[in-house]
Amino acid sequence: MNKAYMGKILRVDLEKGEITEEALREEWLRKYIGGSGLAAKYLFDETLTGIEPLSDENPLIFMTGPLTGTASASASRYAVVAKSPLTGICGQASSGGSFGPMLKRSGFDGIIFEKASTHPVYLKIVDEKAELCDASSIWGKTISETEELLIREAGERAVVSSIGPAGENLVRYAAIMNNKHRAAGRCGLGAVMGSKRLKAVVCSGKAQIKLEDEQAFRKAAQRQNDLLDESMLKVAFEAFGTNMVSDMVNVRGGYPTHNWQEGVYELIDEVNAQAVTEKVLVDGVRCFACPVACGRGTEIRDGKYQGHSGEGPEYETTNVFGPLSENSDLNAITMANYLCNDYGLDTISTGSTIAFAMECYEKGILDRNSTSGIELNFGEADLIVDLVKKIALREGVGDLLAEGTRLMAQKLGHGSEHFAMNVKGLELPAYDPRAAKICGLAYVTANRGGDHITGYIEGPTFVDAPFLLIDNSFIADPFVANPEETKVVVDLENALTMLDALGGCKFMGMVITADEIVELVKSATGWDYSVEEFRKTGERIYNLIRSYCVREGGINRNLDILPKRLMEDPLPSGPAEGMVVEMDSLESMKDAYYGFRGWDLENGWPTREKLEELELDELIPSLWGN
Amino acid sequence: MNKAYMGKILRVDLEKGEITEEALREEWLRKYIGGSGLAAKYLFDETLTGIEPLSDENPLIFMTGPLTGTASASASRYAVVAKSPLTGICGQASSGGSFGPMLKRSGFDGIIFEKASTHPVYLKIVDEKAELCDASSIWGKTISETEELLIREAGERAVVSSIGPAGENLVRYAAIMNNKHRAAGRCGLGAVMGSKRLKAVVCSGKAQIKLEDEQAFRKAAQRQNDLLDESMLKVAFEAFGTNMVSDMVNVRGGYPTHNWQEGVYELIDEVNAQAVTEKVLVDGVRCFACPVACGRGTEIRDGKYQGHSGEGPEYETTNVFGPLSENSDLNAITMANYLCNDYGLDTISTGSTIAFAMECYEKGILDRNSTSGIELNFGEADLIVDLVKKIALREGVGDLLAEGTRLMAQKLGHGSEHFAMNVKGLELPAYDPRAAKICGLAYVTANRGGDHITGYIEGPTFVDAPFLLIDNSFIADPFVANPEETKVVVDLENALTMLDALGGCKFMGMVITADEIVELVKSATGWDYSVEEFRKTGERIYNLIRSYCVREGGINRNLDILPKRLMEDPLPSGPAEGMVVEMDSLESMKDAYYGFRGWDLENGWPTREKLEELELDELIPSLWGN
Repeated sequence: MNKAYMGKILRVDLEKGEITEEALREEWLRKYIGGSGLAAKYLFDETLTGIEPLSDENPLIFMTGPLTGTASASASRYAVVAKSPLTGICGQASSGGSFGPMLKRSGFDGIIFEKASTHPVYLKIVDEKAELCDASSIWGKTISETEELLIREAGERAVVSSIGPAGENLVRYAAIMNNKHRAAGRCGLGAVMGSKRLKAVVCSGKAQIKLEDEQAFRKAAQRQNDLLDESMLKVAFEAFGTNMVSDMVNVRGGYPTHNWQEGVYELIDEVNAQAVTEKVLVDGVRCFACPVACGRGTEIRDGKYQGHSGEGPEYETTNVFGPLSENSDLNAITMANYLCNDYGLDTISTGSTIAFAMECYEKGILDRNSTSGIELNFGEADLIVDLVKKIALREGVGDLLAEGTRLMAQKLGHGSEHFAMNVKGLELPAYDPRAAKICGLAYVTANRGGDHITGYIEGPTFVDAPFLLIDNSFIADPFVANPEETKVVVDLENALTMLDALGGCKFMGMVITADEIVELVKSATGWDYSVEEFRKTGERIYNLIRSYCVREGGINRNLDILPKRLMEDPLPSGPAEGMVVEMDSLESMKDAYYGFRGWDLENGWPTREKLEELELDELIPSLWGN
Repeated sequence: MNKAYMGKILRVDLEKGEITEEALREEWLRKYIGGSGLAAKYLFDETLTGIEPLSDENPLIFMTGPLTGTASASASRYAVVAKSPLTGICGQASSGGSFGPMLKRSGFDGIIFEKASTHPVYLKIVDEKAELCDASSIWGKTISETEELLIREAGERAVVSSIGPAGENLVRYAAIMNNKHRAAGRCGLGAVMGSKRLKAVVCSGKAQIKLEDEQAFRKAAQRQNDLLDESMLKVAFEAFGTNMVSDMVNVRGGYPTHNWQEGVYELIDEVNAQAVTEKVLVDGVRCFACPVACGRGTEIRDGKYQGHSGEGPEYETTNVFGPLSENSDLNAITMANYLCNDYGLDTISTGSTIAFAMECYEKGILDRNSTSGIELNFGEADLIVDLVKKIALREGVGDLLAEGTRLMAQKLGHGSEHFAMNVKGLELPAYDPRAAKICGLAYVTANRGGDHITGYIEGPTFVDAPFLLIDNSFIADPFVANPEETKVVVDLENALTMLDALGGCKFMGMVITADEIVELVKSATGWDYSVEEFRKTGERIYNLIRSYCVREGGINRNLDILPKRLMEDPLPSGPAEGMVVEMDSLESMKDAYYGFRGWDLENGWPTREKLEELELDELIPSLWGN
């Protein structure tokens, strides 16, 4: 078996209650690496086309990467993959903290959960021994309660990944949580877990992760650590966390406000990085083996929610529970974040859905009859906090909101689709592409739907932070849609996909080069690795997942499209005043992007030739027939 | 007269004691802008070839830019230009603080000092009235004493630019100082001022700087301010000042140590940004109209120098008085900095010359007979502090060191030229090009000699900070000399030359684009300005100054060369272990660079065609004959 892997995964048939150990498919490792790459390969191969995401035909796959749990800085991550109940395409999410490393130390690279249990269960893995345990007594508990109970039982070393009430109640954007505050948040994988009546996975163990050349690996990891440790990113992130970017995005006129009706928030000083630091920050929090404490350990010091503490809000969360709903109350934003963590909800989709509902109410598409009497007005801080709980419990109007913006708009009609701010069902993050056109392209090409972190082009455009991981991440003028520059999106998507597959944090890609990553891979696995193979493998995984999305979601050029608001409603003020992402610009960027990708221009599908070039011949029949 | 300028300069004949007001040469403004650009044009036109820098034939020109003193963020700067006694080519230096703005408010864009006075004088300008005053009683005083005495006399509003004992004693790298701690440091212009027996310039006034379109200017300046205010640069600079880069350069293996015998300093934690913050920082200090407080207000809290306070050390200063001389005592480094400020010395050249002398001593080229008995050993913290004073006063061995590394090596021989770390006489800054090859090219092409800030390519290479001011500042791999990438150096040199000419700080160029600068220029001056003209004008000024250097210093391809140590002695350890800047690589980069510049490959001179293209026809005879 290749070094850096534990060499085996667990396959858990939840219906029969059977657990089987199986060897990792060795021939897949170098081709798909691990994390969401390797998991997507299992998903593609082991499922029939057209399965229902919340049916027992949908497997739920936990997977680490070869660097997960090693001394490589930031390599703390595990991925969860399944068909998404929110998007209907490949659902992927990953999370830091210490669950990924502990899963490996319990003896396994990953777990494939199949079918569904008839009653609540959790999986316990201690020192390579796994058992399914009854979870009836913890079903309904919050994340913090669940973790405390399970750790009390399994011992202090144990790390838990679990769902809260939101996942149990099949909220379409429920998260899977670990270390209480860390989320594999997006795409509703918590609902898939809930549909299986799987409450948690508990890991504990002392297995060693063996590396091919320990000494060379230590040297490469030390260099990576040194570069991170001495980076401007670290200085800024430790001072302000991801909220650092709030002011930067606002000053460029692309800070989503009032459900994307505006791009500049006047009360930004109430919710920016300085505000978070002054009002709620206690201390920075770091992931396993990371020198950058970008996490925000916080507490609420006054007002109605005084005494609560936890982690967050991060940048996205601050925006969606704040300006997006015209709310400047940072305590309420922080409380909404805590509730998302504890009930197990993705903050971006939760906050975006609330803002969407508020605009529906503003426009009379929702009224008090359909909201159980609630006045869904913008700016109501406490209402936002209440709604989070209602969504998790599918209580009253929360039952509607638990479906997410796309399904809500389909249900509500009356033109609400125009401002249902999602791409392929995934609610958008807090960077308005009308102020940086190429971000619009990246939203429509991201493999999991409208997402920023698939190819974080927002770094080079909104934050002036280049990526060293690719050859060139320079964007000349964010206000101008330049088709040639879509090559940067392609390169970033491929490269960041590799970080995901390896188990690393994507922010690393701003500080270290592909050469440096390759050194880690070589010394960890013993592969005779190169930058070329690194890039080619990222491209292969990207095409694999795109192919899955084509197969399952009928994804094609016409579905690579933005919500109408971004293409038709000009921003009313600020530096990007008057701007939209013009349909023509978007289509030109798509032409160029598909060209760089070697996809056909008509469908936006990987061509037969491209799939052959990437040694993905077995995917051809799904797209192009035999 | 064009708006944004005061429209007049002072011409001061120090021999006759006559002061004349004259109108700015209006036809030169749009061509050479201001600052060192416009000043260099006066220098080129008004001097004969071959003058001695410390003779009375060398004029000393103070010049502001059209943005100096406006609300444009960071536009606080004035330039001083003369033929340099250190390099024999164009001497240029600029300084922030509030002298530049006050010079304009006293009624003048600049001052040309001609000839020399027989006795110490200073120039006082109050509300557009100028007079030469006797300075006998302040001759010999330090900068702080001089400023205090002159401000007591001229009033609290007054701002002083002056020389200390070093300038009076014609130390070849004496600085001109303002606001006590701010230096127009490089190229020894303080010695030119001293040779004229001009102690100081004192300004005070309330003249308004009139702009063409106040409202549009305010809007553009506000946008610039917003972008700076919300930049990662600001976060990092306010936390750590320029010392932020110490760790970054060290971790990349290019942090000059032991007079460039090494590139990694083991005791970096004693002298890095965190150390400066913990041990001496009191508060950040900002220049006129700048939102970024990157200056370091400091005090020494313990040890021998306890009780002293001032500003600094900045990054360069920390290196040259610290690791470059194997000294890790931050209090001594800070004290050496204070003495440079108070005696009026350029810190980079001072510290570099001391380190050079120490290596001469280490190698037996200097011995106790030639040092008046001093043991010039590396690592002697208090000795370094003492030497600063000795240099300023040309006392004992200080008299030799006051000549700088190039002249010392000529005098000492015995192969010391090999490790006299200067280019064209200017001591090198603290970035080792063996760890980032393109920095070596930039050292040999910089118009004032071995300089980092002419085209700060160290930002994109060592600090991962891109420049938005040019189209693309991306450097793929600093360890590799890629001739194609020398275009970045050309673009940066041209663009940063424009910031100098306009009166702005070069760090701005990392945060704002040329479009944004052009908006400022248009609204300030009323010119119908474009990015193309911005770039072309930067190129014109660069070629003007290069032509002056060719005319005066016989600069040619053979003199665009690095000290032998950088080309022949491999770095002994760290990430750049074994590396040099190979002669072949340097020559290939020069070929490419001259090509991008439109200079001839044989001489490295602007061609006749290039000069015609840039409307510099009048320079042709100096280079190419009639």
